[in-house]
Amino acid sequence: MDLQTELAKRAQLFNSYWQQYLQIKKPTKLYEASQHLPAAGGKRIRPFLTMTACESVSGDIQKALPLAAGLELVHNFTLVHDDIMDHSLLRRNLPAVHVKFGEPAAILAGDLLFAKAFESLLESSVDFSTYKLLQQDFINGIIAICEGQQLDMEFESRKIVTEQEYMVMIGKKTGALFELAGKGGAMIGGGNPSEIAALQTYGMTLGLAFQIWDDYLDMSSTATTLGKDIGNDIRNGKKTLIAVHSLTHATGNSKKLLDDVFGNHAASEQNVAAVYDLFRELGSIQYAQHRAMHLVNQAKDAIINLRPSDAKELLYKLIEYTIQREK
Amino acid sequence: MDLQTELAKRAQLFNSYWQQYLQIKKPTKLYEASQHLPAAGGKRIRPFLTMTACESVSGDIQKALPLAAGLELVHNFTLVHDDIMDHSLLRRNLPAVHVKFGEPAAILAGDLLFAKAFESLLESSVDFSTYKLLQQDFINGIIAICEGQQLDMEFESRKIVTEQEYMVMIGKKTGALFELAGKGGAMIGGGNPSEIAALQTYGMTLGLAFQIWDDYLDMSSTATTLGKDIGNDIRNGKKTLIAVHSLTHATGNSKKLLDDVFGNHAASEQNVAAVYDLFRELGSIQYAQHRAMHLVNQAKDAIINLRPSDAKELLYKLIEYTIQREK
Repeated sequence: MDLQTELAKRAQLFNSYWQQYLQIKKPTKLYEASQHLPAAGGKRIRPFLTMTACESVSGDIQKALPLAAGLELVHNFTLVHDDIMDHSLLRRNLPAVHVKFGEPAAILAGDLLFAKAFESLLESSVDFSTYKLLQQDFINGIIAICEGQQLDMEFESRKIVTEQEYMVMIGKKTGALFELAGKGGAMIGGGNPSEIAALQTYGMTLGLAFQIWDDYLDMSSTATTLGKDIGNDIRNGKKTLIAVHSLTHATGNSKKLLDDVFGNHAASEQNVAAVYDLFRELGSIQYAQHRAMHLVNQAKDAIINLRPSDAKELLYKLIEYTIQREK
Repeated sequence: MDLQTELAKRAQLFNSYWQQYLQIKKPTKLYEASQHLPAAGGKRIRPFLTMTACESVSGDIQKALPLAAGLELVHNFTLVHDDIMDHSLLRRNLPAVHVKFGEPAAILAGDLLFAKAFESLLESSVDFSTYKLLQQDFINGIIAICEGQQLDMEFESRKIVTEQEYMVMIGKKTGALFELAGKGGAMIGGGNPSEIAALQTYGMTLGLAFQIWDDYLDMSSTATTLGKDIGNDIRNGKKTLIAVHSLTHATGNSKKLLDDVFGNHAASEQNVAAVYDLFRELGSIQYAQHRAMHLVNQAKDAIINLRPSDAKELLYKLIEYTIQREK
């Protein structure tokens, strides 16, 4: 089975399904604002993981759609609100929701997607006790994302963040929803406790690797494409794993350079480029790459005892994809 | 039974209960921001209505607490987000959440309360089919509030809003949660379909009256207390029922005054005072008062067939309170 083909097939199935939660009603501006990101595409990795986890325990893929839609609605709602908080102007190559529709409509659009996520979850075909567990996990996932975003913002104004703190933060901000996709997909598919635990671990470790690989990709571009985003991340003092590694390992003049430039909004182009070079010299970019690879190996190990299936093969291929993708 | 005593008693019961959803964890700033409004008090009218509706159909008041907490969490989450959108500086005589904790933490604090609302709802002691109806109503209520807030903001920049449009807006923004308190309380209390419908109508009409009475109170202060808020509402072109009535009925010079001053951010103190006088001269303030009284009569009629009980008496007293309160 080819991953790209299966990703596209499941994305199509998913997109048809969740349309019901994205109808335009009045007041039109609110609904258009809430549709803006969902309609802009995206890889639908979380729905893919939910559906494939369900299949990997011999569950019916259709039954995983409500949770998949719920997770993708939550993912989109958090992007809308995060972009306001982070003053991001672009998302998926389009103006961010608050840029296009104004901040008040963007706050409401996020809230609307949030409410729709629970509407979707409610359609899950499970018994009441499973539903209660699922909804509590769902809520815990959302709370984790809120906590992760708060930590991420707080880290920007701190001089030092430990690797452990960084891992906790991305575990909440990115890992939690991947974890729930794996665990929830398995629960809905009727997996046994060890299968559910396996897919939960798979989801969390994959999510962590996914985030670190994003950090790595952002920083591994060559000097010619060293763009505004890297410059902004350095000037804002954004604590990626790469930055965390350099901040921990720099000494002498390197440490002084970081102290002066990292998190300094007025830093010159030249100094920003010097910090970027330092990240490379200190091996921090390579370290992030290795860390991501280590995590995907944990994800591989987690599902080793699942019975063989096409879905299991896809889960392995998703791992490879996570650390091979270039965007 | 004295209403104030019973309001206080139920508020105390309620406050002890919902503390479990307001614990401080890390990151502290996020949790402190989310607690700021809930800890600032408030009349707990929605929880009171939920609990008393439940009792009025012979239900156990304890069983109504999870829904009551869910509704009050939603109410507080919408206040946090609305204050950001409306640039409100004060709430319950304290700095608004975004003023005290910054806008990013305020957006997240609202999201956190939103998630906690569903955590609370999940504790309702009902069977799965009732739970599904309850959660769908809960979601519909939240969506209605989002739509109502969007309409409220859009109305500010419109010259004319009809009374019907105004009623739809407050039905969503305020009525929906009161409606759900009445209906949901009755559902959880095991009310029969006609009791549930009666308390649903009671809740909606009471909510509408409550909002119109708020509009009336804001405008019925004497000239000496004609404060910043009234001036702001007139300068912002806020479409209260009073404004809607005057805009519809003004002719000649009165119409010209409204055209020039209402919704004009640069309007002088003198002109704002003239518009306020006009509201009075055109009978708009009195009209709002009568409209609220008419609505509470509908609320009274709605519950006429409920069996006699202390709870039913409290529901009648809540009606009187709604149009007698002075803050």
